[in-house]
Amino acid sequence: MLSLAALALRLRVSGCQGRRRSIATVVSGNRMSKLVRERLQKEVEKMRSQFSGFRPGLLVLQVGDRDDSNLYISSKLKAAAEIGIDARHVRLPNTARQDEVLQNIRSANANVSVHGLIVQLPLDSVNRIDTQLITNAVAPEKDVDGLSCINAGKLSRGDLTDCFLPCTPNGCMELIRQTGVSVAGKHAVVIGRSKIVGAPMHDLLLWNHATVTTCHSWTHDLPLQVGRADILVVGVGRAEMVRGDWLKEGAVVIDCGINQVPDETKASGIRVVGDVHYTSANQSAGFITPVPGGVGPMTVAMLMQNTVQSAQRFLQNQKH
Amino acid sequence: MLSLAALALRLRVSGCQGRRRSIATVVSGNRMSKLVRERLQKEVEKMRSQFSGFRPGLLVLQVGDRDDSNLYISSKLKAAAEIGIDARHVRLPNTARQDEVLQNIRSANANVSVHGLIVQLPLDSVNRIDTQLITNAVAPEKDVDGLSCINAGKLSRGDLTDCFLPCTPNGCMELIRQTGVSVAGKHAVVIGRSKIVGAPMHDLLLWNHATVTTCHSWTHDLPLQVGRADILVVGVGRAEMVRGDWLKEGAVVIDCGINQVPDETKASGIRVVGDVHYTSANQSAGFITPVPGGVGPMTVAMLMQNTVQSAQRFLQNQKH
Repeated sequence: MLSLAALALRLRVSGCQGRRRSIATVVSGNRMSKLVRERLQKEVEKMRSQFSGFRPGLLVLQVGDRDDSNLYISSKLKAAAEIGIDARHVRLPNTARQDEVLQNIRSANANVSVHGLIVQLPLDSVNRIDTQLITNAVAPEKDVDGLSCINAGKLSRGDLTDCFLPCTPNGCMELIRQTGVSVAGKHAVVIGRSKIVGAPMHDLLLWNHATVTTCHSWTHDLPLQVGRADILVVGVGRAEMVRGDWLKEGAVVIDCGINQVPDETKASGIRVVGDVHYTSANQSAGFITPVPGGVGPMTVAMLMQNTVQSAQRFLQNQKH
Repeated sequence: MLSLAALALRLRVSGCQGRRRSIATVVSGNRMSKLVRERLQKEVEKMRSQFSGFRPGLLVLQVGDRDDSNLYISSKLKAAAEIGIDARHVRLPNTARQDEVLQNIRSANANVSVHGLIVQLPLDSVNRIDTQLITNAVAPEKDVDGLSCINAGKLSRGDLTDCFLPCTPNGCMELIRQTGVSVAGKHAVVIGRSKIVGAPMHDLLLWNHATVTTCHSWTHDLPLQVGRADILVVGVGRAEMVRGDWLKEGAVVIDCGINQVPDETKASGIRVVGDVHYTSANQSAGFITPVPGGVGPMTVAMLMQNTVQSAQRFLQNQKH
């Protein structure tokens, strides 16, 4: 089915020029993440039967009570429960001090039943807490968000085998693979250079052998740069910024944006859109991820994958 | 003088199109590195008088006896001596085992008179030694080569304030600054993605706000990519690969290559050339670094700068 999609793209790009293009193939994160979660569930069952009831453990540490964080955490806990991961949620009050947060991290680092440890960001505390310090306090071998300096250093220099890949960019790579379009030798353009999306996305594309251009707020010729992309990944948090007429015909377009815009036709009065203007982009892209239902569910699935992988590494090390 | 150079570039690019171009302004690493070393000498003298004879300490650890390593080390020791840095050279035999190398690193990490510790690469041992393990054993606060995972992680994610910048890319940035051409908003192209040149060069250009494209052996349209560069940095180790007619008119061209090619007109039978074909490139570039005398001497100067900076941080921490 995927190779059919790739074939369809080729026909469209090479054989039908001049004719009005059909719309892009939608790359569904909902469908893909479901497949990943089903696979992980089987792997966890296997571990459980082979190692007398063993389950991968995930600890989600939260400071404060932000609505968006609560929402993200509940979707992580739900996915973990379905897969069979033993997920725990520790919430510290927004009066928590840095030392207290660090103490909780150290305790989880030392706990052999915790294989994945994530700190939900942003930290919601009335006290000043150094986010960087907190992120780097997580033991590298439990850093399933892949955000510590050590994991970032390995990824950025191409040592991908023993680090954890950050969940959103790793999810994007899975979606790109699903298109059947090979990354090696392609020109990839990443818009954004954040620690959790743009910067590690650059690294993943580069070490999968794409020629990579990183654009950001200082890039003055963004439409021109975007027009050169065989593969485009956007993670900037600006609603519908990338327009369809910027795109190279047939490009793979991966949209990491989750933005709320006013919409009077909705009961809630709002609508969720990406960083890409979907209705124009799907007239020229070869493949495109929808928002919602694209990158978002993949992020959670990749967190689960990293947690299962961490548990597998733990068991492997126990054997030796 | 530098602003004149920048003015000359502007005139050339904007006002003289159609006329035959004059040759590029040469960006001398010899001259620039001399200025850096003179400044560092004064800073070391100041430390020495303020802190009763204190001197920054650099330890160069070598395994084996490679000719090229011996040459590089001797130029580092010479520069250190001139500046007033207390540099020591420890050479282990090529029969050294990994444990012995690690033991030497741990001992230097613990030695308060060592502020900078570098391991000369490649390791020349008859035994199998994990270079990555060795590089990461150097304490981050003494890693003046800037090659450990932690330093790479900080640099790649834009936390440039408390890490050590790798010497060759940092030297390139100094040379670019000398041209008077601002990096922010420019399109920079880096050819190569090695740990010591290309990958950290990308990071430095990106976090100085250039739009950055990284090219490498998988890039199939290299001349096209190069032609888009306002700033081009090349570090691939292929003699004279980049041709002058690939370049954008007026580009800043930084050549990190050091390649030996046969030359019958020389007594030695060889000649040292860069990765850029100099005689054609200087017809279209705005600024160009020569080889030798460009990036090479800057690398050593930046190592000295990192060592002095590490000693200054050490003194600062002593005060608190």
